[in-house]
Amino acid sequence: MCRWLAYSGSPIRLEELLVKRDHSLIDQSLHSRQGATTTNGDGFGVGWYDDETPRLYRSTHPAWNDRNLRELAAGISSPLFFAHIRASTGSAIQETNTHPFRYGRWLWMHNGLIREFSRVRRELVLAIDDSLYPSIEGTTDSETMFYLALTFGLEDDPIAAVERTVGLIEDAGRKHDIAFPIQMTVATTDGRTIWAFRYSSEGNSRTLYFSTRMDALKALYPESAELASLSDETRVVVSEPLGDLPGAWNEAPESHVGIVQPGVDELRPFIPS
Amino acid sequence: MCRWLAYSGSPIRLEELLVKRDHSLIDQSLHSRQGATTTNGDGFGVGWYDDETPRLYRSTHPAWNDRNLRELAAGISSPLFFAHIRASTGSAIQETNTHPFRYGRWLWMHNGLIREFSRVRRELVLAIDDSLYPSIEGTTDSETMFYLALTFGLEDDPIAAVERTVGLIEDAGRKHDIAFPIQMTVATTDGRTIWAFRYSSEGNSRTLYFSTRMDALKALYPESAELASLSDETRVVVSEPLGDLPGAWNEAPESHVGIVQPGVDELRPFIPS
Amino acid sequence: MCRWLAYSGSPIRLEELLVKRDHSLIDQSLHSRQGATTTNGDGFGVGWYDDETPRLYRSTHPAWNDRNLRELAAGISSPLFFAHIRASTGSAIQETNTHPFRYGRWLWMHNGLIREFSRVRRELVLAIDDSLYPSIEGTTDSETMFYLALTFGLEDDPIAAVERTVGLIEDAGRKHDIAFPIQMTVATTDGRTIWAFRYSSEGNSRTLYFSTRMDALKALYPESAELASLSDETRVVVSEPLGDLPGAWNEAPESHVGIVQPGVDELRPFIPS
Amino acid sequence: MCRWLAYSGSPIRLEELLVKRDHSLIDQSLHSRQGATTTNGDGFGVGWYDDETPRLYRSTHPAWNDRNLRELAAGISSPLFFAHIRASTGSAIQETNTHPFRYGRWLWMHNGLIREFSRVRRELVLAIDDSLYPSIEGTTDSETMFYLALTFGLEDDPIAAVERTVGLIEDAGRKHDIAFPIQMTVATTDGRTIWAFRYSSEGNSRTLYFSTRMDALKALYPESAELASLSDETRVVVSEPLGDLPGAWNEAPESHVGIVQPGVDELRPFIPS
Repeated sequence: MCRWLAYSGSPIRLEELLVKRDHSLIDQSLHSRQGATTTNGDGFGVGWYDDETPRLYRSTHPAWNDRNLRELAAGISSPLFFAHIRASTGSAIQETNTHPFRYGRWLWMHNGLIREFSRVRRELVLAIDDSLYPSIEGTTDSETMFYLALTFGLEDDPIAAVERTVGLIEDAGRKHDIAFPIQMTVATTDGRTIWAFRYSSEGNSRTLYFSTRMDALKALYPESAELASLSDETRVVVSEPLGDLPGAWNEAPESHVGIVQPGVDELRPFIPS
Repeated sequence: MCRWLAYSGSPIRLEELLVKRDHSLIDQSLHSRQGATTTNGDGFGVGWYDDETPRLYRSTHPAWNDRNLRELAAGISSPLFFAHIRASTGSAIQETNTHPFRYGRWLWMHNGLIREFSRVRRELVLAIDDSLYPSIEGTTDSETMFYLALTFGLEDDPIAAVERTVGLIEDAGRKHDIAFPIQMTVATTDGRTIWAFRYSSEGNSRTLYFSTRMDALKALYPESAELASLSDETRVVVSEPLGDLPGAWNEAPESHVGIVQPGVDELRPFIPS
Repeated sequence: MCRWLAYSGSPIRLEELLVKRDHSLIDQSLHSRQGATTTNGDGFGVGWYDDETPRLYRSTHPAWNDRNLRELAAGISSPLFFAHIRASTGSAIQETNTHPFRYGRWLWMHNGLIREFSRVRRELVLAIDDSLYPSIEGTTDSETMFYLALTFGLEDDPIAAVERTVGLIEDAGRKHDIAFPIQMTVATTDGRTIWAFRYSSEGNSRTLYFSTRMDALKALYPESAELASLSDETRVVVSEPLGDLPGAWNEAPESHVGIVQPGVDELRPFIPS
Repeated sequence: MCRWLAYSGSPIRLEELLVKRDHSLIDQSLHSRQGATTTNGDGFGVGWYDDETPRLYRSTHPAWNDRNLRELAAGISSPLFFAHIRASTGSAIQETNTHPFRYGRWLWMHNGLIREFSRVRRELVLAIDDSLYPSIEGTTDSETMFYLALTFGLEDDPIAAVERTVGLIEDAGRKHDIAFPIQMTVATTDGRTIWAFRYSSEGNSRTLYFSTRMDALKALYPESAELASLSDETRVVVSEPLGDLPGAWNEAPESHVGIVQPGVDELRPFIPS
């Protein structure tokens, strides 16, 4: 459906991960290897933090031919950014349907889908808090999930909020006899911590990888100047690896959430409630 | 806010009204005289009937610089078409927010606004029928009005349905202490009849004009080959006149709806219920 | 690089070939089987004749996600049309670089490239007639070829004009030590006759197919109502077949030009001069 | 035709001049007061320096409704930037026709036109150096001027190069009996110095303003915290003032070039050669 990437660590220019890798996100927009579709050409978005304020650049053009994306990726450095390339599962190609979505200091992006979304959409939208409702700008399942998570306390306890969101979606789906209501990898952040979820109702989720701890990677590749320049806290989370460096990537287990944060990162089971 | 035009009569090329008049709709996109804004550059849309099937061309470009619009307006003839140029009152610039909106055989377009829409939006959207809800694609007040009207029976009794729609909007507005909840000129059609409404809560509505009966116009200008080529049934409804031909345009009265139909056209009071 | 399609025959809705086939042109935009690239997502164009006047709809969006294309393809019928999906070989993604190109009554589209175009571009552009020069709007090799062909008499003797054009390009290339200066399939038309060329300096050209004569196809498939509705003159020329109907498609030989015209079609050798 | 703005001085967020002033550049895109057209809605561009490398963001959307522009203008700070809003005088609406243009470290933008450009275009393009020719991407008179200036030594002696460029344009125009071949305000920069030209063949040029020396402005408004935060070297050059602050703006005289540079700025006569 889509491909995404989340970065946290030493400030780097966005192009390092979006453009310059062998299998950079722009390359994945034409040649995804592990995605549901090879081509992810229905728009893209980048969200980055600038003094703790999230900024967005989103476009309906394919990532591979958008010149502004290359300019900005070369010109902008950030210690924490999200990038997403879209393959629409049906909703319109427009900037407001393009990830990442933003609310206050939070960003959200999703790969996967709520199955038969049009049948459960109304019920899910109704569960969104009154005060949040006017901020919805698009029509995707992914943005609906974000606003449900905000309704259920994303800003206070992100994991619990996403567990309730997914629980609600599965309840709604089951009421409509939808066998496997949700398929997802999701990343969300407040600009400091990244939470990355891998889950699907059928227990067969889209791929998700965390880069290896930077100290371990540096030990593996002591001669790499590039790795040496990155802090030990640096971490990348991706739908599919950005290259073939042995030892660099670790697949997340089914039904888990990874927490990339100052200090020791964590991996926990994810159980919809 | 916007400008629009509705045509019914002898099949003509769209460019006759969109491009070639002195004060054509494309000219109005840059130089509106009677609109709330001089520039209407936030996208446009054209809807035309082709053997009773409505087709749409909608774009986020300004009408004045869209080359495809000129090509299509030159290449497409139709006996009934709508055209709309947009000046956004806040919602996103995207094709799904661009008029005319379509449902089945019906088209709908609107100039004006639901005031403080974000405060009443949820309540209004909740009143839309379950079965219609999944067809909503954009986020405008205008599309919400269309789906309310469909909910209230637009396909069976258009005037009653719009009266209920406006009644509901005014009720919702008053509950939120919004002094004048709605300002509108609206056109809707099933491909045979056009209903054109002029109304505002404050009794001071955006302008709306109906062209003079073609037989009367022909009598006024017996030498005009252009008028002679048009059937007596031909009628144009516009936000502002397309030119300065004396006797050609009649302003619709406040709180009225005009019905352009086979046989004698009608003008009736419009009373929200 | 690109994929294209040319149709001549009984008037049909464009969607019949652009949308509805198993391997329609829109399908080829995502899943080309015989092209240099699988994805052809860098814009598209359609040119059709309307009472002998060519009309264009061109867009920088991928064909697969452009809603206007589906609307127009459903709404427009024509007895002769061209359609092209683009995979840029470097020049900018903009409507003026999108095929088909138009001059007067003529359309032109191209799959392939002039190799190392930036090195020979100036010399080629200088060979374009003064009076034609101001009509050039884009920056592609393909449009340059069109204006060279017009300079060399396309409107009077299309085959000779394209032979001179290719001869000039090969001369210019050789002067710059470019081993194989040109790779092309080209279609051009005046609205009555279609000329379709297959050629490359290396003698290994992109594929080109002509549909089988309609009378022979009808004899093969006597029960097909769809085929029965088409005139015996109906012919489709394509970069790759639109489906798998046995006997329906014939590959054009290397270095040949096919002429689709009223009466008997022709196939002739193509020899750059 | 267009409006533009050039800034040099203390690093500021682009939005300070593009968005936040009463008569910011975005406001001028809808409500230009001194321009040839009120609306400048045919695209826009921003070029800024990032460690001496020029970056571009250019779009065909109107500046007033482009959300990405607001995001980037809020997120990007620079000590030297150009911004331009376009009202096309005929050439296509595409990013490659949008100012500023870039070559190496140089940026260029233009308000005005080469009159009857299509008649002199070929002659002017022929005068561009062979090695520069392949870098031309668009089709505007403005970009042609830039490449002529580069041909004539812009990188070594900008004023002499522009004088030769304008001299050539006036010669070419006179040969074709064009009364007043050129109308222009132009800004160009290498990332350190800005040269801003005001000139027209008819001696009646589009307006151009330089902000008052910052030390003088601070003396006029000793209580302004905003002014106090800007270095004495800070200078803004504009097509029309960004606000009504008395004493803040000085109109450039006819046929002059202003040089904004480290140390004392200069104003010199401009004499085409």
